[in-house]
Amino acid sequence: MSEGDNPLVHPDDLRLPRMSGPCGVVMFGITGDLARKKLLPAIYDLANRGLLHPSFALTGFARRDWGKQAFVSFVEKQVREHARTPFNQATFDQLAHGMRFVAGSFGDASAYDRLAQTVRELDESYGTGGNHAFYLSIPPHWFGPVCENLAASGLARDRAGAPTWRRAVIEKPFGHNLASAKELNATVQKVFPEDSIFRIDHYLGKETVQNIMALRFSNTILEPLWSANYVDHVQITMAETMGIGSRAGYYDGIGAARDVIQNHLLQLLALTAMEEPASLDAADLRAEKEKVLSAVRLPANLGEHTARGRYGPGRQAGRQVVGYTDEEGVEPDSTTETYAALRLDIANRRWAGVPFYLRTGKRLGKRVTEIALVFKASGHQPFPMPFTSEQDRNALVIRIQPDEGITLRFGSKVPGTTHQIRDVTMDFDYGEAFTENSPEAYERLILDVLRGEPPLFPRQREVELSWEILDPVLAFWEKQGPPEEYRPGLWGPDSADLMLAHDGRTWRIP
Amino acid sequence: MSEGDNPLVHPDDLRLPRMSGPCGVVMFGITGDLARKKLLPAIYDLANRGLLHPSFALTGFARRDWGKQAFVSFVEKQVREHARTPFNQATFDQLAHGMRFVAGSFGDASAYDRLAQTVRELDESYGTGGNHAFYLSIPPHWFGPVCENLAASGLARDRAGAPTWRRAVIEKPFGHNLASAKELNATVQKVFPEDSIFRIDHYLGKETVQNIMALRFSNTILEPLWSANYVDHVQITMAETMGIGSRAGYYDGIGAARDVIQNHLLQLLALTAMEEPASLDAADLRAEKEKVLSAVRLPANLGEHTARGRYGPGRQAGRQVVGYTDEEGVEPDSTTETYAALRLDIANRRWAGVPFYLRTGKRLGKRVTEIALVFKASGHQPFPMPFTSEQDRNALVIRIQPDEGITLRFGSKVPGTTHQIRDVTMDFDYGEAFTENSPEAYERLILDVLRGEPPLFPRQREVELSWEILDPVLAFWEKQGPPEEYRPGLWGPDSADLMLAHDGRTWRIP
Repeated sequence: MSEGDNPLVHPDDLRLPRMSGPCGVVMFGITGDLARKKLLPAIYDLANRGLLHPSFALTGFARRDWGKQAFVSFVEKQVREHARTPFNQATFDQLAHGMRFVAGSFGDASAYDRLAQTVRELDESYGTGGNHAFYLSIPPHWFGPVCENLAASGLARDRAGAPTWRRAVIEKPFGHNLASAKELNATVQKVFPEDSIFRIDHYLGKETVQNIMALRFSNTILEPLWSANYVDHVQITMAETMGIGSRAGYYDGIGAARDVIQNHLLQLLALTAMEEPASLDAADLRAEKEKVLSAVRLPANLGEHTARGRYGPGRQAGRQVVGYTDEEGVEPDSTTETYAALRLDIANRRWAGVPFYLRTGKRLGKRVTEIALVFKASGHQPFPMPFTSEQDRNALVIRIQPDEGITLRFGSKVPGTTHQIRDVTMDFDYGEAFTENSPEAYERLILDVLRGEPPLFPRQREVELSWEILDPVLAFWEKQGPPEEYRPGLWGPDSADLMLAHDGRTWRIP
Repeated sequence: MSEGDNPLVHPDDLRLPRMSGPCGVVMFGITGDLARKKLLPAIYDLANRGLLHPSFALTGFARRDWGKQAFVSFVEKQVREHARTPFNQATFDQLAHGMRFVAGSFGDASAYDRLAQTVRELDESYGTGGNHAFYLSIPPHWFGPVCENLAASGLARDRAGAPTWRRAVIEKPFGHNLASAKELNATVQKVFPEDSIFRIDHYLGKETVQNIMALRFSNTILEPLWSANYVDHVQITMAETMGIGSRAGYYDGIGAARDVIQNHLLQLLALTAMEEPASLDAADLRAEKEKVLSAVRLPANLGEHTARGRYGPGRQAGRQVVGYTDEEGVEPDSTTETYAALRLDIANRRWAGVPFYLRTGKRLGKRVTEIALVFKASGHQPFPMPFTSEQDRNALVIRIQPDEGITLRFGSKVPGTTHQIRDVTMDFDYGEAFTENSPEAYERLILDVLRGEPPLFPRQREVELSWEILDPVLAFWEKQGPPEEYRPGLWGPDSADLMLAHDGRTWRIP
């Protein structure tokens, strides 16, 4: 995909705004949290940025007794509350023009006939040109019935001969283990071919996550350090301060490893550890992620090298909080973990001997997602102890959120002494460096769906590889009884610290 | 010099404040600019920091009709005007207690007898213990007579059998070419052994310069990048905005290359390019600097790969300024350069093919001293043009002064686009990182003299190596007539830009 590849594309075209063509989105689960807080606002923000075609249509499908106007009012409310860009009446009116609502339940075949009629009407009168994405923001057990009904009503098929498209967008969880993930994939693939399925991992839409590749591969100075020659270990952390809130129905029985490690953290690991792709095309990029994920190895002793916990009651940020098992909706005999950590090794030349430590948890000390490469100490350096007693190892930290940026930690001479070295940091901050605002992850991802650009969406094999990694850990934990309790506001259970102590290391306090 | 080397020194001792023992400084040239603005204030600041022994004595030697009190008042005035730390009456009184003044001219033998008497008196009544440093802040043609007179009066000799010391401190210029430097060294060495001679290059006392070694050798992540494998070229810049002011008498006939490149810039080159020393001891450190300086090679074509200029008249910072040849005290037919630049190569495995570009000048665009390592572009990277059109090469900039710190320049993804890369910087700032204030270079260097710690002082061989590098350039320039004029406030003559253009490169605008 170098500039010379296509003589018909002028290189400058690559810098034009990426806009959608004429198309429609049919959204299932429109009244859910995700649609209300993220998806509808993201669609509005795209429109407000001028990135949606004038013939963009949005159809809601839900079991509500709504007409079009009620739906438009509902969308406006979400946009006004949650959109990133200011409310602009003209933008919204244009968007509302292409809005439709179809009342029906996910299992009601006749509702899909009405939906098909609506879609046809949009194609004919609104110019959507036969291009439609079906966004399934619904519990996974509905994927099958919805897909089957879409197929039965003819909605899932491109118009024969015409260059149109139909795409399915699905949200995690992609199963709860390898077997169910395969089953889920099979269900959707019965209706949509794999290259029309867009699996959303919203972390991959984040600017800081996309920047991992830019950092590594557009620069000269990082890649030489990016291997077992210089890296001692890598810590990938996603920490939250909140508990599960009102999400017990979703979370209990799922837990931290399935909710976060299987998708977000393993994707971060893949982007951090993979080789340079042959190009930025989806096939090349996915091939590299799959290659490194298939080289991931679990430790033999899962007891020593994994940790899980659940938050107990306590005080956090000056407020009394209940323990996980006292949260509303959690089964009293729940064994669901709210903290999970594991050590992974990568069996290839670049990373042999470099553990990747992944951890995630709720009610931890700070809300932060980061990737920290901790470098080896030199075998020798001329500054004798005790001059280096205030120095730790060099580290490069990619701050994914919320304080987006990069930090480099290194030793520097303390002014006024002979040779005292102390750790200092250099920082790069997105907010300071760019006047451009970072779009929300969903803006990027929805636009990519509409444009049919799949590099940021994991394909089936990636999902299955993640479950192959996680399944033995989940099976091991299942035999261990309830997880270890940890105090809210700290950094997880004691077993998490022990897990790194076994390797002579400690977790970073981000 | 590892912690285990001396079983009698507890490692913690290395972190105790470094203080002088009982001793005295005899200062020649006490009324000169350097003594008034830098040396006397530095001595006071050392006293104020508690780093001088209570028996520290300061003797002024000058052709003034002063008694002790007049000298004390003179010193107080300089301290109040120029010291870094606040004026503290108790500190000053203690210091004044040990002040003496000897009136006489540099060539008057009887004055040295009076000086010897004063020094003896200090040893006997003030406890200086026979330890004395003679600070020659005087024009070099006086080095010979002063040393001879010190010898004749017995002042240059240690007391036989007693563990006392006598040291000579000399300031640049250390000659104006190789021959005169050798002659000067011989003159001083007739009286003081080489290891009692402390040659001041005040740049080496700067925190940021000392930090070059700490950065390179206390960290893991820089040294792997620090070679021809990754570095394209190095730019070492010392730029001033001022003209020569009232210093024509010193400067005219000397010029930018002798004044700055021979000492400061070649020392910065040596610290940047040298191998890791076996220890931080003076002998090991000097050996490495000499090794790399003796590997420095001049380009065959000095016309293409050097540049010199002198500032013409013009406007700078909104003010009309005169050209160099119109400055008071400059000979009308002067051929002295106020801007000098040259390319040097280093004939060793680490640096073969990596030019070091050195430049210095007066009346340039900004007051700045920096070392910039500009890295090679990768042979390939997956981001196609035009996405990388806003990206330059990666660079590491060590900011020596005035904005002390380190900057790393690298490419990062521009938010909201697909793959657009733009250069951003990460910064480390001394002022933000350390609560410790940076002492003045002269505080560090004077204390090192009093403690007999020579690592920061170039020895004879280093000085001679610098002249060996510079002599052919000076000889070449001498044949070229007057230097090219350049406009004040810009970045030197056109030939400086051409010099880099020949190599397909450009100077940084710091």
